[in-house]
Amino acid sequence: MDNSNIHQQGDCWEDKAWNLLSKVRQQSPLIQCITNFVSMDIVANTLLSAGASPAMIHAVDEICEFTPVVHALCINVGTLTPEWLPAMKSAAALAAELGKPWVLDPVAAAASSFRLKACLDLIELKPTVIRGNGSEIIALSNASVGHSKGVDSLHTSTDALEAAKSLAQASGSVVAVSGAVDLITDGHRFVGAHNGVPMMQLITATGCSVTALISAFVAVDPSHAFEAAASALSIFGIAGEMGMNLAKGPASLRVHLIDSLYNLNEATVKNRVKITSLP
Amino acid sequence: MDNSNIHQQGDCWEDKAWNLLSKVRQQSPLIQCITNFVSMDIVANTLLSAGASPAMIHAVDEICEFTPVVHALCINVGTLTPEWLPAMKSAAALAAELGKPWVLDPVAAAASSFRLKACLDLIELKPTVIRGNGSEIIALSNASVGHSKGVDSLHTSTDALEAAKSLAQASGSVVAVSGAVDLITDGHRFVGAHNGVPMMQLITATGCSVTALISAFVAVDPSHAFEAAASALSIFGIAGEMGMNLAKGPASLRVHLIDSLYNLNEATVKNRVKITSLP
Amino acid sequence: MDNSNIHQQGDCWEDKAWNLLSKVRQQSPLIQCITNFVSMDIVANTLLSAGASPAMIHAVDEICEFTPVVHALCINVGTLTPEWLPAMKSAAALAAELGKPWVLDPVAAAASSFRLKACLDLIELKPTVIRGNGSEIIALSNASVGHSKGVDSLHTSTDALEAAKSLAQASGSVVAVSGAVDLITDGHRFVGAHNGVPMMQLITATGCSVTALISAFVAVDPSHAFEAAASALSIFGIAGEMGMNLAKGPASLRVHLIDSLYNLNEATVKNRVKITSLP
Repeated sequence: MDNSNIHQQGDCWEDKAWNLLSKVRQQSPLIQCITNFVSMDIVANTLLSAGASPAMIHAVDEICEFTPVVHALCINVGTLTPEWLPAMKSAAALAAELGKPWVLDPVAAAASSFRLKACLDLIELKPTVIRGNGSEIIALSNASVGHSKGVDSLHTSTDALEAAKSLAQASGSVVAVSGAVDLITDGHRFVGAHNGVPMMQLITATGCSVTALISAFVAVDPSHAFEAAASALSIFGIAGEMGMNLAKGPASLRVHLIDSLYNLNEATVKNRVKITSLP
Repeated sequence: MDNSNIHQQGDCWEDKAWNLLSKVRQQSPLIQCITNFVSMDIVANTLLSAGASPAMIHAVDEICEFTPVVHALCINVGTLTPEWLPAMKSAAALAAELGKPWVLDPVAAAASSFRLKACLDLIELKPTVIRGNGSEIIALSNASVGHSKGVDSLHTSTDALEAAKSLAQASGSVVAVSGAVDLITDGHRFVGAHNGVPMMQLITATGCSVTALISAFVAVDPSHAFEAAASALSIFGIAGEMGMNLAKGPASLRVHLIDSLYNLNEATVKNRVKITSLP
Repeated sequence: MDNSNIHQQGDCWEDKAWNLLSKVRQQSPLIQCITNFVSMDIVANTLLSAGASPAMIHAVDEICEFTPVVHALCINVGTLTPEWLPAMKSAAALAAELGKPWVLDPVAAAASSFRLKACLDLIELKPTVIRGNGSEIIALSNASVGHSKGVDSLHTSTDALEAAKSLAQASGSVVAVSGAVDLITDGHRFVGAHNGVPMMQLITATGCSVTALISAFVAVDPSHAFEAAASALSIFGIAGEMGMNLAKGPASLRVHLIDSLYNLNEATVKNRVKITSLP
């Protein structure tokens, strides 16, 4: 197939995605992660395999010295307790003040009023990107307590499109909704990223990992958060597709996904990126 | 071999085990895990591969809203500090009050008087199942401080049979003792689960993982905790046996064990379940 | 090749390294780890694969009962917060008092003044070995705040040789600097360990893991910490070399490295150990 027409439309996602991954590999951005206990290992390994430099540093005492030297900040509320909130808020506020991109993963936002309020408070601090599943984005958009089924999504990502749009417009953040098709919007533009395989949902913290990857992509092109978020979701999905060729189950998929992310080359990325405009 | 006689005895463990695994896959029970830092990743991945839905949520602030919506609770004291106890006790008490099954893993119960007391306090809250190694169960049964060799067992599981019986009768819990042969008792009935391979002990947190799996099995059949505990131990052991066929060491066994748990089919389970009555 | 001359020089690192690994496998020393959240899983699995017995126990309440029964202590400040310091200091002080070896990993020591001060305070408690990368060792030696690039090293290990020497002489600790060549010094003797592969740096917490392995080696020969540290670094590097033969990326290297550590035999170790005196 001749892709030249698509290339001439200035909407060339395969080039954008490859260029962003290449920049991450070249610049090795330092990403501060204040993330949950479950995900720390796979998040750090995902960032390293993509070429970024992770730093799991979350003491309040270190924020004012450390956050100014990072290239992006990733905050994930997966195993939140009240003791963690001051560091999250302090780092997010400082990142916003310094014009550094920061990304929020509102894990299980609807699981409790404590968690929902924490997420809403963090959103006040202007995340560059918010990435969640359908249930989480709907809960945040509704800003009312519901009961989520743990960290898994009860809604399809399509159901969440309206919620994502509302949340993006209200917050000023790019909002990404993971699902069978990942949705990305800045409140005005809407794209779908169609990469990935269902078995990725059977590996814990793949959502957290792609949020961290978004942080790395936004770090190297902070003025194009919409493109960075969509590209990171697509690239992570492609790594899952390549990994699935070798996997025999969720645990080997995890290994092959990370290996594949490390090994992705230009031809594979450009042939497989599937990001489309949504009406 | 003709199994018809065994089947007619109403003591058909291979059917019970397969039926429970099938129920977990069909119902995908939501399991709240308040577990140690070392085990969070493998516990979540074990539950996902078995078909259950893990939620690592441990803030005191969330218990009263979240615990009521889960199907079972798993509490593990592996990296206990005093700050974690209120959430553990609050969740356990609420689960017991609501009639939801909950399972205790008393990791290294004998390592300190602090830890032993914490475990004894939790046992007061009526766990449905307690699963530990021989040292842990003996320490709890003796309710006196000793020095365990870390989280590994100094005693054979057979040595622990009497301790398990006493603890089960005193607590009202089903008690499971992991070892070369896993022992399960409700204080009156005694069975041994003979599946598994020795190398599983060289993977950190396999004990924690099987405790979480017991939680998922009990979640789908809470009125048969004895059968659920024995079946989960056998199924996890079978996954280890299948994984061992492909493993070249402890790290690849971990991968293949989880893959195998995901892939277990009826024929494999029914051919391999080995649960026997003990005199 | 005939190695008899080398053997007769009394400087036979291949024998020392193999003997120490064999002792770890035979004695299975109990290693208390107070380490960071990111590394707990891989640290425990590294110790288990080497034949040691890990115990991740860090409550202040347990130190006075538990630390006296361990064979060595490993302290790692990777995800430090102020709440963790009392347990670290208490365990280190008790280990020093009881004459038990303890090993410090000053992760990202230069990331903040809080972290640097914590590391300096711990060094006052006389660690047997300090293992870090070049940036960390230079920062500690300079004892002044700089900005590290996260947990990765900005300096080559050779640059850090002078810093290591100064730190060793000031602290009385053996100091090891990881890098393309690992440097080990007690302030008077200097050796380089030349094993390992670059991709190990793309696996999170490999540094933490080798620090834990040093703890296990020192545990079985506490009066020869210099030899134990150099041998552990070489052995871990050899496991990486063997793993690299099978790896397709960082995640499969992690699996194969740990498998290889478990499977290392005398011939492989003795053929591959490369530890040389530095001028």
